[in-house]
Amino acid sequence: MIELPPRKGVAVRLKRGQRLRLVNTFGDQVVDTWAVMAADPTEYMSMEHSRRTTGHLHPEPGDILCSNRRSPMLRIKEERFDGTHDTIVACCDHWLYSHYGCEAGHANCHDNYLSALRDVGVEAKHVPNPLNLWMNVPVVGNEVEITSPLGKPGDFIVFLAEADVFVVLSACPMDVAPAQGAAAINGPNLEPMPVHYCVE
Amino acid sequence: MIELPPRKGVAVRLKRGQRLRLVNTFGDQVVDTWAVMAADPTEYMSMEHSRRTTGHLHPEPGDILCSNRRSPMLRIKEERFDGTHDTIVACCDHWLYSHYGCEAGHANCHDNYLSALRDVGVEAKHVPNPLNLWMNVPVVGNEVEITSPLGKPGDFIVFLAEADVFVVLSACPMDVAPAQGAAAINGPNLEPMPVHYCVE
Repeated sequence: MIELPPRKGVAVRLKRGQRLRLVNTFGDQVVDTWAVMAADPTEYMSMEHSRRTTGHLHPEPGDILCSNRRSPMLRIKEERFDGTHDTIVACCDHWLYSHYGCEAGHANCHDNYLSALRDVGVEAKHVPNPLNLWMNVPVVGNEVEITSPLGKPGDFIVFLAEADVFVVLSACPMDVAPAQGAAAINGPNLEPMPVHYCVE
Repeated sequence: MIELPPRKGVAVRLKRGQRLRLVNTFGDQVVDTWAVMAADPTEYMSMEHSRRTTGHLHPEPGDILCSNRRSPMLRIKEERFDGTHDTIVACCDHWLYSHYGCEAGHANCHDNYLSALRDVGVEAKHVPNPLNLWMNVPVVGNEVEITSPLGKPGDFIVFLAEADVFVVLSACPMDVAPAQGAAAINGPNLEPMPVHYCVE
């Protein structure tokens, strides 16, 4: 397995039919996840399009996540997790950390997305709404709450590529304390942790 | 009041402090709604950012909808409507109508967004997740359902501009029959209708 260090992002090339296994090694870590078509990165995995085709707010095993052009991109083949993955809130970015009073330069998923794609030669202009793996955002009635994670060490998810894609992963750097107004997105220790992945 | 014809889009310039009043004249019509900053249209009203700051899945009166850079853009100042506005499904586009077996050239909100902005000199590259006014997309548990509208003739909404913006409105052209797999998004007559607006 390859380590994705905390606060870092990576773009992983998958050919159609390949699988990406991602392990939440320590259990509490949120991983913001995107995909773009390798042939044309302006076609991206879209939560707002996928919710329409899956009929699910939070994707489930068997669901196929599709692009902004309604093409299949990633299928959730298998997972071990007693909770839901979020699709309704944006990734963290420097504007959010500025709002929380953090110093400039705080690592963030927005910039991780752009730099991970740049590392594989893709210049993205737009950061889509990610699939926030293991992020606990319950929706009760009309209320959206961002709260502590439900993952357990070793929880995993396996994606099957339905097209030739780059999958982008960001081990979310959120470490702002609830006293500053944030939720303990990555667990009560407020300490982002590594996760591990491999292509199968 | 200015008429927005069915199946058409328009971009309306609002200076900070101005209001846009939009009336659902016949009650059943969904209006896909976006906003971009007049000074920099790559900054757009973002449902995924707004859900985080409002804490609401469906925006309510008093909510401030913010941009992808977390700046206030539109406040819902007032409304008359006994239902919810959708923020979780993408606008219709030619890929969707192709999926439903419609002929090429079917009007769609995606293209209305791009052409309405082009008409005011803005070349947009990306179509954000809209605020789907009066679109009835109940979420029960994890299930997302797209179903018939709940509006009544004369229902209205008033937005207050929190910045200098273009608001883009599209009177949704969806007219595909439930027998073809679509929901009666714009009511049982499957006939998109005009809506009316003015700047106050």
